[in-house]
Amino acid sequence: MSAGGPPPAVILCRTQMGENIGTAARAMLNFGLTELRLVAPQCGWPNAKAVVAASGAAVVLNRLEVFKDLAAATADLHHTLATTARPREMAKPVVGPEAAAASALAAQAEGRRVGIVFGPERTGLTNDELLLADALVSYPVNPEFSSLNVAQAVLLFGYVWYRQTAGDAPAPPAATAMPATKAELGDLVAHLVRELDAVDFFRVEERRASLIRTITVLLEGRRWNSSEVQLMRGIIKDLVGGRKARRKGSTSG
Amino acid sequence: MSAGGPPPAVILCRTQMGENIGTAARAMLNFGLTELRLVAPQCGWPNAKAVVAASGAAVVLNRLEVFKDLAAATADLHHTLATTARPREMAKPVVGPEAAAASALAAQAEGRRVGIVFGPERTGLTNDELLLADALVSYPVNPEFSSLNVAQAVLLFGYVWYRQTAGDAPAPPAATAMPATKAELGDLVAHLVRELDAVDFFRVEERRASLIRTITVLLEGRRWNSSEVQLMRGIIKDLVGGRKARRKGSTSG
Repeated sequence: MSAGGPPPAVILCRTQMGENIGTAARAMLNFGLTELRLVAPQCGWPNAKAVVAASGAAVVLNRLEVFKDLAAATADLHHTLATTARPREMAKPVVGPEAAAASALAAQAEGRRVGIVFGPERTGLTNDELLLADALVSYPVNPEFSSLNVAQAVLLFGYVWYRQTAGDAPAPPAATAMPATKAELGDLVAHLVRELDAVDFFRVEERRASLIRTITVLLEGRRWNSSEVQLMRGIIKDLVGGRKARRKGSTSG
Repeated sequence: MSAGGPPPAVILCRTQMGENIGTAARAMLNFGLTELRLVAPQCGWPNAKAVVAASGAAVVLNRLEVFKDLAAATADLHHTLATTARPREMAKPVVGPEAAAASALAAQAEGRRVGIVFGPERTGLTNDELLLADALVSYPVNPEFSSLNVAQAVLLFGYVWYRQTAGDAPAPPAATAMPATKAELGDLVAHLVRELDAVDFFRVEERRASLIRTITVLLEGRRWNSSEVQLMRGIIKDLVGGRKARRKGSTSG
């Protein structure tokens, strides 16, 4: 992780369902976020449903803090982001999760403490709560079905944030074997054509050239490696050999 | 949306908890995905818990389809992605969700049907199921807490996909022949294995499974189109039978 300060705190306001706190805790830990703050949880705290839903992410619940209002919960932070489904007419910048994560990382890098705030399930954050934030975060969603669960909103922010801390490094690809040489591929085509000639596969001389071209593209264009080419040759040999053996068997038998 | 074909289908294999199907349906609809397919749902189907959890996303459940196995569920698709927490040593490309979404959009733009496959909660997809895919998708997560719920994995893919459709959808690449469907490729592998069994190609039972896996990768990973698959099947048939042999057989018989 390149950022200097601690990762952002996640702040859940007036959450109504304990399960959502637990699921949010799991989502946080999935992406390396461990600092959870609750503002006046409506579901009460401690909360058994949250503990069950958090299974495996108890570390997040164990260190969470509860505050009476959002101002108290963000008092020690330097930069806060508030999520909202409906960015109202407010003199605040509105950004998507990627820009929000980038601003969080930039603040972190300067040693500033960052928090991202999520509202209650039904109503979202109030205008007064949104006003406390440095920027509003709005998620791009299907306008015809935009109701994101609070824990899912936490998950998406966590993912985008983690993705940016990790650089954009894609997962390492599986080791691949050395690709076959042109000679190996050429021999494979020649072997197959020889056997196909033996069974009069091409039938008409005029079709032969164009079919061989097609077969060549088909076999050479696919970046097989050496052992795959050897396997194909073994397959051809045995398919042909099996036929010959059967014929021999039937004539002698 | 700039992409030509329909959005990707989401395929849930052997899902254990109905709630996860419902939550996945909501997550899909949040990001404009509406085609859900279930493979042998362990929680049973129809499922009351799924209906409750899907609240508001009934449109997704109403049109979902149930299949007996993954091959059947993907038979009409051209490009499939399989999600896994542990990309094993498999000769398959492994990508993150962003690259997966980009490849899905590229395939869509060409009018190819795409599906993304998610395994059951406990175990994930089997190696055989992973083998059916064109690419494996691995999510970047905190290595110390990597257990992503299946509906959350659906949500993250949906988000990343939607994010790309809304903005930087890739330009459609040059037209190429329609790639073979999964069913055509599956039939090709089955045909070859049947003939190889007939000539005792695999020799030792223990090698059979791993060789079939290699052959599957070799034949399915190469984006052959329908006519190439038909050509390969013709080749196998004639190598085995021998056109001359057949002709000889019919005249003497």
